[in-house]
Amino acid sequence: MTLAEAVALVRDVDDAVAIDTQRRLDRLTKPPGSLGRLEELAVKYCTMTGERKPAVPRSVVFTFAADHGVVDEGVSAYPRDVTAQMVLNFLRGGAGVNVLARHAGVEIRVVDIGVAHEFDPMVGLISRKLMKGTRNMAHEPAMSKETAEQALAVGVELATDAAREGMGLIGTGEMGIGNTTASAAITAVMTGSDVNDVTGQGTGIDEQSRRKKVAVIEGALRRHRPDPSSATDVLSKIGGLEIAGMAGVILGAAAARVPVVLDGFIAGAAALIACGLQPRCRQYLIASHRSLERGHQVILEHLRLKPLLDLELRLGEGTGACLGMGLVQAAVKILTEMATFGEAGISERSA
Amino acid sequence: MTLAEAVALVRDVDDAVAIDTQRRLDRLTKPPGSLGRLEELAVKYCTMTGERKPAVPRSVVFTFAADHGVVDEGVSAYPRDVTAQMVLNFLRGGAGVNVLARHAGVEIRVVDIGVAHEFDPMVGLISRKLMKGTRNMAHEPAMSKETAEQALAVGVELATDAAREGMGLIGTGEMGIGNTTASAAITAVMTGSDVNDVTGQGTGIDEQSRRKKVAVIEGALRRHRPDPSSATDVLSKIGGLEIAGMAGVILGAAAARVPVVLDGFIAGAAALIACGLQPRCRQYLIASHRSLERGHQVILEHLRLKPLLDLELRLGEGTGACLGMGLVQAAVKILTEMATFGEAGISERSA
Repeated sequence: MTLAEAVALVRDVDDAVAIDTQRRLDRLTKPPGSLGRLEELAVKYCTMTGERKPAVPRSVVFTFAADHGVVDEGVSAYPRDVTAQMVLNFLRGGAGVNVLARHAGVEIRVVDIGVAHEFDPMVGLISRKLMKGTRNMAHEPAMSKETAEQALAVGVELATDAAREGMGLIGTGEMGIGNTTASAAITAVMTGSDVNDVTGQGTGIDEQSRRKKVAVIEGALRRHRPDPSSATDVLSKIGGLEIAGMAGVILGAAAARVPVVLDGFIAGAAALIACGLQPRCRQYLIASHRSLERGHQVILEHLRLKPLLDLELRLGEGTGACLGMGLVQAAVKILTEMATFGEAGISERSA
Repeated sequence: MTLAEAVALVRDVDDAVAIDTQRRLDRLTKPPGSLGRLEELAVKYCTMTGERKPAVPRSVVFTFAADHGVVDEGVSAYPRDVTAQMVLNFLRGGAGVNVLARHAGVEIRVVDIGVAHEFDPMVGLISRKLMKGTRNMAHEPAMSKETAEQALAVGVELATDAAREGMGLIGTGEMGIGNTTASAAITAVMTGSDVNDVTGQGTGIDEQSRRKKVAVIEGALRRHRPDPSSATDVLSKIGGLEIAGMAGVILGAAAARVPVVLDGFIAGAAALIACGLQPRCRQYLIASHRSLERGHQVILEHLRLKPLLDLELRLGEGTGACLGMGLVQAAVKILTEMATFGEAGISERSA
């Protein structure tokens, strides 16, 4: 499926399914509504997929890795090499996302879409490298429009393939030293916010470095004037390749009616891009958690998404997405595995 | 172990372990602190158990069932029979707690500590019935002091046995039509709150019935004058047998240094009783979630517990505890399964 085909294919979720799903939930052996947001999540899942009695979804997280030229401006607490080193850590199963994915029964697919390192061919690494890191947005556009579109297409293709394999739930994750800078820049443009209000401490820079990061982003926005009405323009000028890949996954998943569980801030920036290309994508998004990164709250409000968890996470990789996917699976099980009042022979409400 | 022995055995958690655990967490391949409350939870778990590299805990939820004489006052939306019917549902695996326990890999033990129904002997039902429901607190004390102490002892024994079997995490759950009334009464007395501020809609009564429920509780408190400095006095006059059982589990678990994951409002009332008997119990408590029942927030503040989840649940049974236990397991896995920077050959912070 091409990017344009995916954009054209995304349709509204099916609200008729919501009524049937809620009716079933209300017949289960519990006071109506007493499982709160789990019930809401079950209903959402069904309206997205169009299924009334879904199977527990096979689940996959795509963790896209890429580097960022803007790291040369000193915006991160860690050196660029860490991106490639962490890719190896993902493949060996030692990273946070590996642990939480195993915990939640989620598969991880690691995609090199732009790491500034030549990996030897390795089992488990999906190689879709388009550039060895973006260019430095402080001086030039991060990538060409063609590259941005190719990166989006990579995500569309991976999500389409996953849907075809029978994956019923897709999570978005990432690794890229410097990518909170790109995400803050995207968030400022796409939500019309002040840069300072959406720029946080990333992996842990101090306030002085954060102010410098704000200045770098403000400079890049003045120089390139990204057009918020064109998500590919924004992506090419200030975006990251992994952000584009995640945006493509969102589009491809939404086109295939597969619900998407977003990780934190950087995945949120990707969601802004995807929704810029096709606003109906929003209907297929589930926010796993509220990140400590200050820009994330701005994204959640802009997209009108209410996060499931608030555990003060700020790691990325897809860690929060894995925890959120566990809750989606639990919600589907509630809908399909609980007994009804009739089946269990239990008295209904007297009041 | 007797009740008195358990009370005497509970000691302070081991803060020296916290330092070692945090040191290990800071060497793992992630920015320090970036897994937020999961890291906090891993540290807490280790200080409670005294272990530095714990195994992923085998986990069990005790779901205590009992009836309440006060149901005669019309305080619940459901008839009393539902307690016994739900016990059968638990044993068949069709209730919400069954679904979420399977999801989280948690065992459920269902305990009849006071259901107003004679069950045939059944596989899976732990029979410790002390009364066929409490007496109606509107007219007389719910139970004798001896019965309250016996019910506490049942919980102590079950938790002690579970710890001996190697359970590393214990959750508390319950079923008892009318038990939000007993819990609100206990909460008002133990926290010194106004009855109206801690009395909610339970399984779903309307505002008029809620006001009646407040009046019933106020009448019972005026009649019996439970003494907040004596948790057994409170328990015997207005408490429920399942609440006593859960309080006993908390005491027994804390005495054995097994962390306890609390469910919602009713489990919270049990925690108030346990902490009334032995304030150090508080150090072994993990609050799984914030319930929609208004009194729960009062309990959480009183015990200075910060819930892990806020999913608008109000079902009870141990459903929230199961979800919280999943997070505790995830936290332990983060501590013990992630690679360190050294193991993974990853560059440390440059800043």
